[in-house]
Amino acid sequence: MRTLIENVTVVFHDGSYEKNIYVSYDNDRFTYVGKDMPTGDFQRKINGSGKIMIPGLYNCHAHSPMTHFRGMAEDLPLDRWLNEAIFPAEDKLNGSLAYTGALLSCAEMIASGTVSMSDMYFFCPQIAEAVGKAGMKANISRCVVSFDENAEMKNDVRVLEATELFNSYHNAFDGRIKVDMSLHAEYTNTANSCRYVADLAAKLGCGMQVHLSETEKEHIEAKQRHGMTACELFEKTGVFDSVTNAAHCVWVEDGDIDIMAKKGVTVSHNPISNLKLGSGIAPLEKMINKGISVTLGTDGAASNNRLSVLNELNAAALIHRGVTKNTEFPSASVLLPMATVNGARSQMRDDCGMIKAGYKADFALIDAEKCHNVPSYSPVNTLLYTVYPTDVCLTVCDGITLYENGDFKTIDIEKLKYEMNNSISNFTEG
Amino acid sequence: MRTLIENVTVVFHDGSYEKNIYVSYDNDRFTYVGKDMPTGDFQRKINGSGKIMIPGLYNCHAHSPMTHFRGMAEDLPLDRWLNEAIFPAEDKLNGSLAYTGALLSCAEMIASGTVSMSDMYFFCPQIAEAVGKAGMKANISRCVVSFDENAEMKNDVRVLEATELFNSYHNAFDGRIKVDMSLHAEYTNTANSCRYVADLAAKLGCGMQVHLSETEKEHIEAKQRHGMTACELFEKTGVFDSVTNAAHCVWVEDGDIDIMAKKGVTVSHNPISNLKLGSGIAPLEKMINKGISVTLGTDGAASNNRLSVLNELNAAALIHRGVTKNTEFPSASVLLPMATVNGARSQMRDDCGMIKAGYKADFALIDAEKCHNVPSYSPVNTLLYTVYPTDVCLTVCDGITLYENGDFKTIDIEKLKYEMNNSISNFTEG
Repeated sequence: MRTLIENVTVVFHDGSYEKNIYVSYDNDRFTYVGKDMPTGDFQRKINGSGKIMIPGLYNCHAHSPMTHFRGMAEDLPLDRWLNEAIFPAEDKLNGSLAYTGALLSCAEMIASGTVSMSDMYFFCPQIAEAVGKAGMKANISRCVVSFDENAEMKNDVRVLEATELFNSYHNAFDGRIKVDMSLHAEYTNTANSCRYVADLAAKLGCGMQVHLSETEKEHIEAKQRHGMTACELFEKTGVFDSVTNAAHCVWVEDGDIDIMAKKGVTVSHNPISNLKLGSGIAPLEKMINKGISVTLGTDGAASNNRLSVLNELNAAALIHRGVTKNTEFPSASVLLPMATVNGARSQMRDDCGMIKAGYKADFALIDAEKCHNVPSYSPVNTLLYTVYPTDVCLTVCDGITLYENGDFKTIDIEKLKYEMNNSISNFTEG
Repeated sequence: MRTLIENVTVVFHDGSYEKNIYVSYDNDRFTYVGKDMPTGDFQRKINGSGKIMIPGLYNCHAHSPMTHFRGMAEDLPLDRWLNEAIFPAEDKLNGSLAYTGALLSCAEMIASGTVSMSDMYFFCPQIAEAVGKAGMKANISRCVVSFDENAEMKNDVRVLEATELFNSYHNAFDGRIKVDMSLHAEYTNTANSCRYVADLAAKLGCGMQVHLSETEKEHIEAKQRHGMTACELFEKTGVFDSVTNAAHCVWVEDGDIDIMAKKGVTVSHNPISNLKLGSGIAPLEKMINKGISVTLGTDGAASNNRLSVLNELNAAALIHRGVTKNTEFPSASVLLPMATVNGARSQMRDDCGMIKAGYKADFALIDAEKCHNVPSYSPVNTLLYTVYPTDVCLTVCDGITLYENGDFKTIDIEKLKYEMNNSISNFTEG
């Protein structure tokens, strides 16, 4: 369908903006972005006046079925939170619950302008089906954990599931789904399992997702276990030889940052989850100055508890100013790529993440006329500091409208919320 | 008007909650809060199912006309931001612009559940009229600055305006407006002016508002100027002998905290403004452990850029967990009073800040069924971590509905936004 958006203000992936321009798309790709009204017939015209248009956002660290655990077991540090609350609850998950949980994640992301996520979990076929249904994109990975140095990895059930997932879903739903490999973390794996999964990813040519140095405790213990940092272990075992998305990186050292820069590892920065679990604040300025490509992630709903990249964007803008006492960092030219094109590249989607002719038609429109957004000296400042995720009024992925003015076009949201509320008893009883 | 709210979940001022209870109010006061349906006729019944009810929120540090400067001159440190951008823009303000700016602040606050603010600025009669019109409460103070140690304070134009403001507006609008005295800060005053304004506040029996140790620079320079901290100067000059609201307190020392605890000074914590201007993060845990009553403030719209106490509540919950790496601090029992009853007490409104029979009927209802709020293991967790300020669907102050489902009952919001957008040229041209 040929669609024209008229008189819209666009904030681009690099933090620049243009006011009152035209954007058109035909089926799944942008066809024109500029000051002149494009000629031709359009089946739909959208009045962009009073709206800010942004590239569809990338949530580069998610555990989508965990919406079931949103608000469960607050106020615990990461290790106790995992062992005493989350792991026992995860034992009670099943495929059907994982599907509804993942679908609710998709709904919340779509409603706040996110078009793609990088997901690391289990019940991955159900996640893929939920993403397919929702109309989003995702790089989905079956998380490998392995505690026995002598385990035969080729018969490991997680590795088998990861391989099966790749065979069944890689490039499924018109390429909207991609399958990555993943290692949960250094502290839940052996050098052997790291090496095996690294080789598998290299063989398949897919991406790699890992948790890396999220807490001080795990970072210190890694050095005690291996005589090297988790980052060094990943490098040594070949993990970073594939396109890698390393989540958190709160406690990485200068040498780790050098390694990640050299190997082209993308860091998924999860500012809110890192605060909420008391993990700390990642050294974003150091990573950016070393040339690392950084993205944003929400983490799972149990540790945030929101799933909005717009919200992470605002948090990242604020927190690093407060911590570094440098009011010029991070600038919009650092922040906007984190939420958009850096995410697309980390997912090996080279035709995504920008509002540009020829690129996939992935974008959101934001109502910039709510009273908290008025007046506006610059749409970039409005986007970073006043817009709430709920101001998103249109989300389009591959040219398909997924959400518009409160209506979900691909999801029966009332049924889904009813099912999710009723699911609480699965995790709190017995 | 007798109103009954049925089957509502209330999160109280102390962080406790009750599900499915009844709350009634008659004219401006709550008449019943409990499990049994109250008898009698009600002119209005509100279905509270799926809603979270909270006490009306207190924004204890505001400069309400500064909505005009929202998004102006981003990325500058506090001193340059003030001297190069804000002070020149403030020179172009007039009474009419101050009124519209203040009214937009009121609109944004009302729409996010705030019923009262503590405001420190100039053009105070216009602020009082805007608050009166909006139906909110406010403690308004005319900010005194004085750089000449030999100035005759009784003829100082700011002091005269402050006194006139007190005479004209203290307890105006059925007591919704109170007038405080205020000293802008140590670095913009002399010991003489501090003493004069302190004596004036004591004589009038009103409150006192000050900025205190917001930036490291001002904190260090105060010690160089006076051989004592700003906090010590305020104590010595009698400032703290009145009910004092000290904003920011990012750089206060242990001795300062002891002084404020001893003198019963309330600290207004402004987490987002302090991050955005690169000022730092206030030592909240120390202040709470010493028994200081802490409130929340947004600061002006130019340094936040939002004016939502709900947003500060979420930020405070997250930031201190991340900085202290203590996932148990601040608890809901610390946070909820900051947003509610501590604010009411700092404004000397002893019958406000709680949902309790006999107290003023000030509250907000929040839609807890938006997809980002589902599922909910506890309404307190939902309130702190997932609710967006835009989820507020009803705000009532003194029993009067000010905002409901997007409609402003006291403000012509479309006209106001139009005027505010058109006002930008006053500050950017010439």
